Amino acid sequence: MKSFASDNISAAHPAVMQAMERANHGSAKPYGQDEWTEKALAALQQTFGETARPSFVMLGTAANVLGLKSMLQSHQAILCSDSSHIHVDECGAPEAIIGCKIITTPSVNGKICLETCRARLSMREAVHHSYPKVLSITQQTESGTIYTIAELQEIGRFCRENKLYFHMDGARLANAAAALNVSLKAITADVGVDVLSFGGTKNGLLMGEAVIFFNPELGQEFHYLRKQHMQLTSKMRYIAAQFLAYLENDLWRTNAQAANSTAALLAQELGTLDHVRFAFPVEGNALFVRMPKASLERLAKDYYFYIFDEEDGPGFPAGWAMARFLTAFDTTKEEVLAFAKAIALCK
Amino acid sequence: MKSFASDNISAAHPAVMQAMERANHGSAKPYGQDEWTEKALAALQQTFGETARPSFVMLGTAANVLGLKSMLQSHQAILCSDSSHIHVDECGAPEAIIGCKIITTPSVNGKICLETCRARLSMREAVHHSYPKVLSITQQTESGTIYTIAELQEIGRFCRENKLYFHMDGARLANAAAALNVSLKAITADVGVDVLSFGGTKNGLLMGEAVIFFNPELGQEFHYLRKQHMQLTSKMRYIAAQFLAYLENDLWRTNAQAANSTAALLAQELGTLDHVRFAFPVEGNALFVRMPKASLERLAKDYYFYIFDEEDGPGFPAGWAMARFLTAFDTTKEEVLAFAKAIALCK
Amino acid sequence: MKSFASDNISAAHPAVMQAMERANHGSAKPYGQDEWTEKALAALQQTFGETARPSFVMLGTAANVLGLKSMLQSHQAILCSDSSHIHVDECGAPEAIIGCKIITTPSVNGKICLETCRARLSMREAVHHSYPKVLSITQQTESGTIYTIAELQEIGRFCRENKLYFHMDGARLANAAAALNVSLKAITADVGVDVLSFGGTKNGLLMGEAVIFFNPELGQEFHYLRKQHMQLTSKMRYIAAQFLAYLENDLWRTNAQAANSTAALLAQELGTLDHVRFAFPVEGNALFVRMPKASLERLAKDYYFYIFDEEDGPGFPAGWAMARFLTAFDTTKEEVLAFAKAIALCK
Amino acid sequence: MKSFASDNISAAHPAVMQAMERANHGSAKPYGQDEWTEKALAALQQTFGETARPSFVMLGTAANVLGLKSMLQSHQAILCSDSSHIHVDECGAPEAIIGCKIITTPSVNGKICLETCRARLSMREAVHHSYPKVLSITQQTESGTIYTIAELQEIGRFCRENKLYFHMDGARLANAAAALNVSLKAITADVGVDVLSFGGTKNGLLMGEAVIFFNPELGQEFHYLRKQHMQLTSKMRYIAAQFLAYLENDLWRTNAQAANSTAALLAQELGTLDHVRFAFPVEGNALFVRMPKASLERLAKDYYFYIFDEEDGPGFPAGWAMARFLTAFDTTKEEVLAFAKAIALCK
Repeated sequence: MKSFASDNISAAHPAVMQAMERANHGSAKPYGQDEWTEKALAALQQTFGETARPSFVMLGTAANVLGLKSMLQSHQAILCSDSSHIHVDECGAPEAIIGCKIITTPSVNGKICLETCRARLSMREAVHHSYPKVLSITQQTESGTIYTIAELQEIGRFCRENKLYFHMDGARLANAAAALNVSLKAITADVGVDVLSFGGTKNGLLMGEAVIFFNPELGQEFHYLRKQHMQLTSKMRYIAAQFLAYLENDLWRTNAQAANSTAALLAQELGTLDHVRFAFPVEGNALFVRMPKASLERLAKDYYFYIFDEEDGPGFPAGWAMARFLTAFDTTKEEVLAFAKAIALCK
Repeated sequence: MKSFASDNISAAHPAVMQAMERANHGSAKPYGQDEWTEKALAALQQTFGETARPSFVMLGTAANVLGLKSMLQSHQAILCSDSSHIHVDECGAPEAIIGCKIITTPSVNGKICLETCRARLSMREAVHHSYPKVLSITQQTESGTIYTIAELQEIGRFCRENKLYFHMDGARLANAAAALNVSLKAITADVGVDVLSFGGTKNGLLMGEAVIFFNPELGQEFHYLRKQHMQLTSKMRYIAAQFLAYLENDLWRTNAQAANSTAALLAQELGTLDHVRFAFPVEGNALFVRMPKASLERLAKDYYFYIFDEEDGPGFPAGWAMARFLTAFDTTKEEVLAFAKAIALCK
Repeated sequence: MKSFASDNISAAHPAVMQAMERANHGSAKPYGQDEWTEKALAALQQTFGETARPSFVMLGTAANVLGLKSMLQSHQAILCSDSSHIHVDECGAPEAIIGCKIITTPSVNGKICLETCRARLSMREAVHHSYPKVLSITQQTESGTIYTIAELQEIGRFCRENKLYFHMDGARLANAAAALNVSLKAITADVGVDVLSFGGTKNGLLMGEAVIFFNPELGQEFHYLRKQHMQLTSKMRYIAAQFLAYLENDLWRTNAQAANSTAALLAQELGTLDHVRFAFPVEGNALFVRMPKASLERLAKDYYFYIFDEEDGPGFPAGWAMARFLTAFDTTKEEVLAFAKAIALCK
Repeated sequence: MKSFASDNISAAHPAVMQAMERANHGSAKPYGQDEWTEKALAALQQTFGETARPSFVMLGTAANVLGLKSMLQSHQAILCSDSSHIHVDECGAPEAIIGCKIITTPSVNGKICLETCRARLSMREAVHHSYPKVLSITQQTESGTIYTIAELQEIGRFCRENKLYFHMDGARLANAAAALNVSLKAITADVGVDVLSFGGTKNGLLMGEAVIFFNPELGQEFHYLRKQHMQLTSKMRYIAAQFLAYLENDLWRTNAQAANSTAALLAQELGTLDHVRFAFPVEGNALFVRMPKASLERLAKDYYFYIFDEEDGPGFPAGWAMARFLTAFDTTKEEVLAFAKAIALCK
């Protein structure tokens, strides 16, 4: 069945798989002491700037949770949007692994609300409440929107002024950088991010994720944390090789641009339809649309995708549910046009 | 300074202190194997019915957290009102000690919203979300209101129908039973509560709290949990003796009625003032009032109390903050009338 | 039944109970903001020296575990003797609450073996092993022996040289100070202890324990840790009042001397018996003796005590088990002589 | 540099890499809903018998820790040999993630000592101690020895009689089955194993491990545990494809036999040398040898390997340290003979 359900349904990019094959010869020292890992970490540092100290973990949840754990004690709290992946989609991993509380702000098109954050800071005064220590955002957000450089700078400033660490979940960071047409460094190190999860699985890798520390005070014992929390692969070359291919010639950007542009094409096609409206601005590779439930049910006979909200949305017609459509680096223009046509017919 | 800040500022009831003195003679087996503990547990069982299996812990936070831990794994969640003590006032203890997520519903006069609970149950379907396993309420609520028997029965039914455990934070359970004029059993065992925190520190004890299991499947290894989580006092007779005095001749009810009736008197007096309005119905020993900020500031020169909300409340005049006034078992009529007079003057 | 099972079977000292009664009047600010707490903390600081920063918790397990948690991350380890209370008798609380590993050395008369500690330090090199960060000893040890000042100084030096924090479980610290005839400060602050658990429940208190930080870098956020880990009592005056009485006129020393001297008397009496031999030197208020099992069985008909080792001990006759006898502050000379006589008869 | 340091230094077997390449086409449902995963799980079930319920995780540490967590509460303990990987080499992950205590027995050639286990069961009686609930062994052991079928049956019986769960760390299970010339089922399901970690990374895979539940009461919510503990890869086909290749035509056995036979060849060669003695019987693919330290130092100039014990061993000449040599599936006869020759020369 054809699917616009997620960008994690794609196979790996051929160049990434080839890199793994090339790494598959001879012996290599285990646990990241190999030359592929050395080169890949250097490449990450070159990409993210000299303050970057990267480490590989296996999965995005681990990158987020262990990055956050490096900044938090259990009586401290994370401020984030109520649509954050760390809050909604990680099965309570932050609570279980860090033991901390997550304090959410209403999502504004997927973005954090600084005003609400500010109001929550007063909780710092008494011993009875977990107090905020980290502010976490997702770039590209879970709603498909993208923080501008100015917004990121404002968040960075807010964090510094209020002694909060700035965490970024970058599972789709490449899509954001591609859409903004800036470097990865410009939207991370340069805006004051302390710890970043840099993912690639949604943009052409098989698996593997990097945690990158920018703040020199953090992550000094991260290698122990990684081992103890079951993320230290003995044959690390197979993660490193993927990242080498991913960074070479900015494959990450090429892939992200491809996904963004098919998403834009889909948005353009759907923009002409009366029975489709966008729930959030389409800025990267994700579309959130509201349509009549009956239309979505018909569409689901031929396409696989997720319904994000069965209930009516404010400002939308009654009976219109919200669906998410994602494009990936290997989504073709033809697939998009066929999908748009199918949607047009599900009136 | 005179204080209406909380019911935990009072000394212990004289009968409770005398019971401790009487227990202070001779040797006793440690860790709850003594005769005071045996008698006190029997008295609790008689009070709460034959399905009750009580244990003593040191503090209310422990009673709540360890009772909840007995029902939960870390990937499961607690449903509660967003004003719940377990969510707001225990410094993230449930997250730290259980590792679970707390999912809140908007508070309706301090009570849980079952409609929102129902909507959250769909989260059970996917492995990406913590799923609700326990519904927790506080009786008397943190807003000073009291669940009626009918409301409790409805919650009990909701829990059974949806395979949720029913937890009750009873830090002020005595005030609720006194206000409803029913037995403690009628609002716990009889409405389907699975695990109860039964507190007395806010109603005449020095310290000490009981966790009571009603569901025979739960708490089988609670004695280990209690020890490991730093709640097993070696000289348990000093907790048990307090509870013996507390249950004898229903001292708990006498105390709670006293507190409730001075609260009612205060409410009656304040009800005549134009510059005071109640934020929630006054049903037990707590008043939440909105008043002009300037009035509260003046009042604070002579009285100690907590401001619960500095912001404007919907439906109230601008610039009116919300304060909480609590009466205790030893609050006198004269103190209340003097306080009411002071408030009247802070116009 | 008469009992030499433990020093926690005694009632509280009358002066301690009287102090609680005196505290039981009028209102007091909750959570340690009261005047009793202020005075008791000042008294502790005077006793332990100006570097001492004390806090009250409810129980000894909590004092140990939360003091240790203030020094440790989960990938670090505690070095201690294999007879340590934190290893053997706290139901795995350090592992559960801190998440760390405990690495034991063979007990030498209840004391830690520094040579073994030194050998374990090499584990620091690799990410695959928890590495030692804290060295913990118990003074008076669980075997009834007492570290000399010179031994404590050597341990302090070892810790400094090897970047280990020095933790002391002082559940029976008073007995040690009384036996050595030194101040409490002399065997804690002055020998380089970083964090101390100072207990009184085994020497005349009802309950309550102090955690004392000497190292200024540690425990900065202990007040949050205490609240979150269920140790912040709202009516703290009842713990504080006990400590005030305990420190006044060195009641702690009077009590400990009494217990030590009845233990010495018992040791003297038993020293003349052929069927009794000491497993460890008797230096404080605890005797560990080996006797024929049949003798112990007969003795158990009239006396309550614990068997610590059913197996044969090296250097002792076959069939001789090890029992523990403890005296307390209120054990009388007559009780001791009667007990000694009973033992003499159980030949 | 040539290396006999471990079996995790090898590249993946070509057939395994080819299987990944074949899986790298087109879309696939994420999180294990794909057809490769379905087939691989079916293949595991066919291999391990119909009671087997397998799940994939990323790494061996995760397989062990999460399998164990499925059987344990934090106040319970794991019995294992003091040379166990879960005790020595996982950076305290069981303590951190499960919160439980590990109770070790002296290793007997790497194997658990049932007599010591039996003695530890008495700890079950009191609430003060963590009590044993799981017995865990490693097959092939960390010392290179292999439990016979009879030994495994005895352990299974011991577990059943004493209500212990039987856990097996099978990071090198293939080497054991190959050496014993039996099926994988014969040394797991058939001897009463409740939960197995089945690894392949040390025998030809790139990464990925299976947790297999045999006891139908265990692991019902393992899918939540896996997600929450950061082990649910979105593109699971890349793990599944490896296992499909690994099980096809018993590649696991072919690989393990190859490693075992080069180990046997090495043992045969070294057996003739006066300055080399075996610390443990050589039964699989690991050799533990004692040699003069000077010899090992010279050898280390040309070969990479681990020293396991710098100290003298009982029964061995003074100044002889213990080294570990491991062969892998791709170690050649020529490499072994050259290594043996080098060792012979380092006299």
